[in-house]
Amino acid sequence: MRLATIRTATGNRAVRVDANAAVETGEADVRALLERPDWAAHAANAAGPSHPLEGLDYAPLVPSPEKIICVGLNYRDHVREMGHEMPDYPTLFAKYATSLVGAYDDIVLPRVSEKIDWEVEFTVVIGRPVRHATPEQAVEAIAGYTVLNDVSVRDYQSRTSQFLQGKTFEKTTPLGPWLVTPDEVPDGGLEVTTVVDGETLQSSSTAELVFNPVDLVVYLSTIMTLNPGDVIATGTPGGVGHARKPPRYLTDGAKVVTTVAGVGECRNTCRLEPVP
Amino acid sequence: MRLATIRTATGNRAVRVDANAAVETGEADVRALLERPDWAAHAANAAGPSHPLEGLDYAPLVPSPEKIICVGLNYRDHVREMGHEMPDYPTLFAKYATSLVGAYDDIVLPRVSEKIDWEVEFTVVIGRPVRHATPEQAVEAIAGYTVLNDVSVRDYQSRTSQFLQGKTFEKTTPLGPWLVTPDEVPDGGLEVTTVVDGETLQSSSTAELVFNPVDLVVYLSTIMTLNPGDVIATGTPGGVGHARKPPRYLTDGAKVVTTVAGVGECRNTCRLEPVP
Repeated sequence: MRLATIRTATGNRAVRVDANAAVETGEADVRALLERPDWAAHAANAAGPSHPLEGLDYAPLVPSPEKIICVGLNYRDHVREMGHEMPDYPTLFAKYATSLVGAYDDIVLPRVSEKIDWEVEFTVVIGRPVRHATPEQAVEAIAGYTVLNDVSVRDYQSRTSQFLQGKTFEKTTPLGPWLVTPDEVPDGGLEVTTVVDGETLQSSSTAELVFNPVDLVVYLSTIMTLNPGDVIATGTPGGVGHARKPPRYLTDGAKVVTTVAGVGECRNTCRLEPVP
Repeated sequence: MRLATIRTATGNRAVRVDANAAVETGEADVRALLERPDWAAHAANAAGPSHPLEGLDYAPLVPSPEKIICVGLNYRDHVREMGHEMPDYPTLFAKYATSLVGAYDDIVLPRVSEKIDWEVEFTVVIGRPVRHATPEQAVEAIAGYTVLNDVSVRDYQSRTSQFLQGKTFEKTTPLGPWLVTPDEVPDGGLEVTTVVDGETLQSSSTAELVFNPVDLVVYLSTIMTLNPGDVIATGTPGGVGHARKPPRYLTDGAKVVTTVAGVGECRNTCRLEPVP
């Protein structure tokens, strides 16, 4: 089953995305849907107003998550590319909801930087509250998977020791287009790629993850309760622009496609921020 | 004017805290109140159900902020204590809403650590949406000030380069008890203190801030829209337990009082997390 949040003339709607139409579930967005303990059966049985797939306007999959948790240095190839040792613990940082855009929206390039980079990420969405999870409980807590492009403003990211300010610029972070429930995600490593203006710049596999989704839910739930709609971006593989020689960044008009095979893809055009 | 969120038998309520009673404004919490463009007049004129001050049960001032933004290394004395240079830019990191507790609630000490520390913080609450603020617009965007104790799990904080995981443990972060509007906050430096079991361990002044509230709103609003109810904890002065020789940490039963003179204080008892 695929679930999404779409924009309509009368506001956001949670939908089940079938092969030939999107069917409203009755909730305003995927977070509200996942907050129902019966969300899986409710969504599977939903028979609300239907929308043709062509031209659907996807909102950020979860427009206002309680938490967007990002993992750094979590692909073996990216750890090597950055010159680090394999980590004992996941590196964690945050984004705020104001950074999100829909899967096909423009990425807004802030005028204060010319060092804006791509980061495709295989991403977990939480489907039930969980704390101190066992691995089995972690599996049960995962509603499904989606794609996030962790667009990063590298000069702000490195202004201080803490990444946050380079990771949470307004309307920089595509999330979506939909969540795919675990039963429909292929077993084994999934190919993750970034293509900019037709050129493949990241290409790896989730088989390279140091900490997999279940590891991350177990670890994070030691720290705090994960709640329905929480987003966990599991990190990016090698091939980011900042690590290239010479470095390479996103520019006005660039078209970026970030894909997790078997899950989905975000397709975004970069647009320079309007003059304030 | 002082504003708070209190718990009642029928749920949370935003209140105006007068000298002799707390008066409901009609909204469920301070964020919902501040989302009204007319919040100041609305709260000043509110005449809803009234509660005696004695025994009020304060919820976190903003129970579910869109953003909790924390500033590190922002007191000249703390920068020196940590052995750093004076910063050119604010160091920014996040907490999630699940970390918050009310001003008089217990602080929950997680069982996974014995290195849990105090950090009193003079804290800004945003009262209107603002992006690319001028200093004048920043002043207008500040609804008022409150107190946050940025309780920090030092071993988790230093497991990786990113502070987040040590800063956002469940139910560790008192916020409140109320917001004081700027017109009622004394001019000049405000004394900020932490007292643990009767002993004063932090004592400084907001005059030591490297980046003041207006500087921070201007800087942050370059990155993103600040929205009503957003919380900006401006950093902590010297005297944290981790930097003491020998180091000193919070233990089960410890009573912690964090105060910003003229604004308010949080009074909390530390309680070891129940066995999961």
